[in-house]
Amino acid sequence: MIKVGIIGATGYAGAELVRILLSHKDAEIKWYGSKSYIEEKYAKIYGNMFRLVEDTCLDDDLEALSRQVDIIFTATPQGFLAGRLTEAILENAKVVDLSADYRLKDVSIYEDWYQIEHKSPQFLEEAVYGLCEVNREKVRRARLVANPGCYTTCSILTAYPLIKEGLIDANTLIVDAKSGASGAGRGAKLPNLFCEVNENIKAYGVATHRHTPEIEEQLGYAAGQPVTINFTPHLVPMNRGILATEYASLRKISRPDGSLAYPEEAQIRAAYEKYYGKEYFIRLLGQGIYPETKWVEGSNFVDIGFQIDRRTGRMIMMGAIDNLVKGAAGQAVQNMNLLFGLPENEGLQLVPMFP
Amino acid sequence: MIKVGIIGATGYAGAELVRILLSHKDAEIKWYGSKSYIEEKYAKIYGNMFRLVEDTCLDDDLEALSRQVDIIFTATPQGFLAGRLTEAILENAKVVDLSADYRLKDVSIYEDWYQIEHKSPQFLEEAVYGLCEVNREKVRRARLVANPGCYTTCSILTAYPLIKEGLIDANTLIVDAKSGASGAGRGAKLPNLFCEVNENIKAYGVATHRHTPEIEEQLGYAAGQPVTINFTPHLVPMNRGILATEYASLRKISRPDGSLAYPEEAQIRAAYEKYYGKEYFIRLLGQGIYPETKWVEGSNFVDIGFQIDRRTGRMIMMGAIDNLVKGAAGQAVQNMNLLFGLPENEGLQLVPMFP
Amino acid sequence: MIKVGIIGATGYAGAELVRILLSHKDAEIKWYGSKSYIEEKYAKIYGNMFRLVEDTCLDDDLEALSRQVDIIFTATPQGFLAGRLTEAILENAKVVDLSADYRLKDVSIYEDWYQIEHKSPQFLEEAVYGLCEVNREKVRRARLVANPGCYTTCSILTAYPLIKEGLIDANTLIVDAKSGASGAGRGAKLPNLFCEVNENIKAYGVATHRHTPEIEEQLGYAAGQPVTINFTPHLVPMNRGILATEYASLRKISRPDGSLAYPEEAQIRAAYEKYYGKEYFIRLLGQGIYPETKWVEGSNFVDIGFQIDRRTGRMIMMGAIDNLVKGAAGQAVQNMNLLFGLPENEGLQLVPMFP
Amino acid sequence: MIKVGIIGATGYAGAELVRILLSHKDAEIKWYGSKSYIEEKYAKIYGNMFRLVEDTCLDDDLEALSRQVDIIFTATPQGFLAGRLTEAILENAKVVDLSADYRLKDVSIYEDWYQIEHKSPQFLEEAVYGLCEVNREKVRRARLVANPGCYTTCSILTAYPLIKEGLIDANTLIVDAKSGASGAGRGAKLPNLFCEVNENIKAYGVATHRHTPEIEEQLGYAAGQPVTINFTPHLVPMNRGILATEYASLRKISRPDGSLAYPEEAQIRAAYEKYYGKEYFIRLLGQGIYPETKWVEGSNFVDIGFQIDRRTGRMIMMGAIDNLVKGAAGQAVQNMNLLFGLPENEGLQLVPMFP
Repeated sequence: MIKVGIIGATGYAGAELVRILLSHKDAEIKWYGSKSYIEEKYAKIYGNMFRLVEDTCLDDDLEALSRQVDIIFTATPQGFLAGRLTEAILENAKVVDLSADYRLKDVSIYEDWYQIEHKSPQFLEEAVYGLCEVNREKVRRARLVANPGCYTTCSILTAYPLIKEGLIDANTLIVDAKSGASGAGRGAKLPNLFCEVNENIKAYGVATHRHTPEIEEQLGYAAGQPVTINFTPHLVPMNRGILATEYASLRKISRPDGSLAYPEEAQIRAAYEKYYGKEYFIRLLGQGIYPETKWVEGSNFVDIGFQIDRRTGRMIMMGAIDNLVKGAAGQAVQNMNLLFGLPENEGLQLVPMFP
Repeated sequence: MIKVGIIGATGYAGAELVRILLSHKDAEIKWYGSKSYIEEKYAKIYGNMFRLVEDTCLDDDLEALSRQVDIIFTATPQGFLAGRLTEAILENAKVVDLSADYRLKDVSIYEDWYQIEHKSPQFLEEAVYGLCEVNREKVRRARLVANPGCYTTCSILTAYPLIKEGLIDANTLIVDAKSGASGAGRGAKLPNLFCEVNENIKAYGVATHRHTPEIEEQLGYAAGQPVTINFTPHLVPMNRGILATEYASLRKISRPDGSLAYPEEAQIRAAYEKYYGKEYFIRLLGQGIYPETKWVEGSNFVDIGFQIDRRTGRMIMMGAIDNLVKGAAGQAVQNMNLLFGLPENEGLQLVPMFP
Repeated sequence: MIKVGIIGATGYAGAELVRILLSHKDAEIKWYGSKSYIEEKYAKIYGNMFRLVEDTCLDDDLEALSRQVDIIFTATPQGFLAGRLTEAILENAKVVDLSADYRLKDVSIYEDWYQIEHKSPQFLEEAVYGLCEVNREKVRRARLVANPGCYTTCSILTAYPLIKEGLIDANTLIVDAKSGASGAGRGAKLPNLFCEVNENIKAYGVATHRHTPEIEEQLGYAAGQPVTINFTPHLVPMNRGILATEYASLRKISRPDGSLAYPEEAQIRAAYEKYYGKEYFIRLLGQGIYPETKWVEGSNFVDIGFQIDRRTGRMIMMGAIDNLVKGAAGQAVQNMNLLFGLPENEGLQLVPMFP
Repeated sequence: MIKVGIIGATGYAGAELVRILLSHKDAEIKWYGSKSYIEEKYAKIYGNMFRLVEDTCLDDDLEALSRQVDIIFTATPQGFLAGRLTEAILENAKVVDLSADYRLKDVSIYEDWYQIEHKSPQFLEEAVYGLCEVNREKVRRARLVANPGCYTTCSILTAYPLIKEGLIDANTLIVDAKSGASGAGRGAKLPNLFCEVNENIKAYGVATHRHTPEIEEQLGYAAGQPVTINFTPHLVPMNRGILATEYASLRKISRPDGSLAYPEEAQIRAAYEKYYGKEYFIRLLGQGIYPETKWVEGSNFVDIGFQIDRRTGRMIMMGAIDNLVKGAAGQAVQNMNLLFGLPENEGLQLVPMFP
């Protein structure tokens, strides 16, 4: 039995970790960390957990925690883990960080976009970017996993094979993303009030959202060169789900007769199949079928669909995830499974809930 | 492995049966019946089931089906099963009917409230009303289970112990119930359109809703005499969930000194504990805590809270369920577990999803 | 032109006053009071007002304000106005208070239910309860109007004629009310977050909600004796709207032959017509039609429907309003119209928006 | 008083015409056409209109109607008006068509994208595309106005000045649009059910949506050459509102010293001001402020914001409208005002409703 500690257990991502781990047959939560609710019963904070969780929230003490558990999940604000992580902690326990602290290899980019000083850049090199479908082997050997962001997981996976195969021009990529409100967390802020979000849609963080450099870094690895993209997030009046609609110019490829032409549907599909054909969590939809966030709700699936537009010479790619599952807690558990040599989908064979 | 056939597999209740049974380790769905989508892939009707269900929808043939499976769930309109059920079918397979056809013992009440002729009243006596927490032992020995309605499950369980113990006057009971839109089914009808339901609340079926006699019959058994109540359903702009707010006059009970007085909080609580103390699926909330439908979403739980109002001499009882789970598919699987001698919560240890 | 000052102009009720008054041909807003946003442009707080309101928010100074305007609306927390109101203010300007400070005539009931000391009980006698359809004449002569609460407006008007005419027993009245989230105000509190309210319904303040004594006092006047009722509010995932579903035992009345019988549909209807037949804002729906909050959204209408249940001897009455309009700002403007001798529906002929 | 006939008065766009015209002091609705509800009271179809509209729905008879009214609005399916329009009708009354029948000048493009034969192409040349801010003078002299589509109004106006001024490359334009569910109409279809739309977002009509050629034609006029774009609509779980997020490559422009550079914020703003500075209905938001659909709900406003992204050399432009108002009925009334020489915003000074 893997002993698990969660720091930030009362945020939405932390609570989703609890939901998933309660049904994981090889894991047991030993520590519900929450500095806001110390000594309160966890089930009082989350009424859905009544009778399922009897534990009380504990203070956030990473060192103490690391000696009692096998793995620590930190679902905490940016800068929290970077300010506390030590070699001792990493010797005691695996760490999967759901914040952005170790996602970007270049500390200056982190400090630029997040506007905070990074307190432990010495761990950046070691940290593995936990996008399981791409970095699976590295994760298996890691001590410290940087769990990808919700928007980034969806944005990267939707375009990855086509960039890797050179079928689209990565520098023309535009990601128009739409997220449910749980992505904003459980903080009591005016813009997150029901009456402000409901019956409304808006863009935010236009050209400045912090997930941009994370997408660029990862897609840069795929492209084999630096990539600059547009990323625009939108807030949608729903609890869960991210839909990324992505646009990029198609590259012409050689045909048997030597001429150049846009790729056919089958070639695009083959590229996706090459990378995702054996992936349990990635579902490539059939021709003319586009993903809907409701189809993945509550599950760890990534649904991907695409449409070639020969009129404009562009690809339109669409990906959908549940931001709290594949975009946060589910992928974190997927990483845990990799770290401990379990089947990757253990505890994650969640059937999406509809309606 | 229990072989399962579902008739009406493409309605919301049928789809929820699929969702639950896919994770049930002792059951296997062999037949996805749907007269509207014959020969279409099930996953094309429900995109969430892509790659999880490879089957194709079949015509509704009860006789053929009964020879191939151990249990048949009928998630069909009123009158469907009553018009087709035969002794032969019941000899071949257990039947759990999610419609109202066998819920009311008195055929004239059925015909009155449903305005259709009952085609097989000969099975009414044998049918067991599948409210597991109340009729558990009878269900175990049944061939034909009448799975309770969604409103009724919630309404009955919320008041049952207090009526059984005589702490409230059953004939003063008023049930004001609120349901999410999935209770109306997947029929393409104008009142169920997004723009008609969203940002709106209304009562419907006032004083005439068909779940009324079902509640009255069952609470009548508890009271030991016929009961007449008010039941008012409301449509709430959400997908899932039923909340029943119930009002009844408290009965004064004898105190040690012989005087009469309203019961105390502890006495009310003791009555609930007497009937539900060992029930896995019924969660009696702490003092001053009232149920929220979100706390049971996706699960088979019934959450119950109450408040004594000494100013008016009334009890206010509140119960919440997920209408598609405990109110339909979940309770149907709970009945299946009873019918086949499995642990009652097998495949039903679903953790509610929040948010 | 009536010069208007609003204290608390940046709450939802205050903002609705602005929305309505901008289209009122005889009124002009001179003061946008908001202690939270002093010196900020109003249109920055409410983006919908961009280019429609050029004013900047001002500090809350009642005395100064009263010398500059003809009427002050206070859309402020309980206790605010009671702590500041003076004779001088009332000599300078009319005051319509949207808080509860002057709604209850008995100061001890106020202090009991609101748990705050009333700082200016000397104005209680003078204050007129501004339920226009009931107290129209008194309002015309008032200086200080206590604008009714949202739940109370809906709850009282729905039952008023039947209690006044003795057709129902007021002490059996149970009001099960459902409100959209704007009723909770614009405070940044966790329970009001989108993800907490959306896809959820719950009761709150059961047997303790502060609108209870207000309903009781007013219905007591109608009944000619003290009345004790049950009132249970619920939070519904929608922005606007209140639906009150009300239950009461019918009283038997004398028939021509001297026997006693429950009233007929026509008699109930006649009672409603007697009081509301000439009311512009009260719409008595046809037989078998029940109100929906969407039908009154954005308007000052009160829609009322009813159903006699002879099986149980009870009336079910249903009323719907827009909580921000007839439940707050609309009624406040209706009171202003009365105070200044304008047609009562001036600026309030708002057509409900659907969908 | 302008006498108005509405064909298709019971669809959402038709109902919005009714809502707006009821408050228009110079117009009077004489004919509520609805072939689905002939002889039913209009207020029975739309409960919000109870007591405000006493009329009964009439059959759709354009010829008869044209003799009784000054203007006909057709809020009807594609092909309806094209199959019935005659010279006689146009001699009798002005016609504003809310369908797509006369929006595209090239009949072959219409027949291609709509897959129906155009039955009266002889009126195409005469028809004026009723995008008031662009074609104001032509509308004034028209008999037949093709009221623009909802997506198109928003998409075109958001980019128009920058294309007209050559600040962006029109052929790089990508319009990612998001719409509330009322855009799909009131047809009882499964994909429009509450449970299918709620808690969900999806793209549809990718690379094939019929509003594409309409946007291309109009932006082509602005660009002075044919334009090919990408347009992707999405369905958002809300009743009203369209948000268009638009991307295009900036063009470098000459600076005083002769060098080329991307335009500055002020230059972009100046371009918008040049075309929209005097427009009542177009609100150019301040720097760093992006439109939200809630800010225009119920009004005829178009809110526009933008962000220059120097990293990628792209403009991100965002526009928001209420799809039923500026995207349909409001713009139709604006066209009516132009046709009859009234102030353009007569009856359209609607204050957006928030929340």
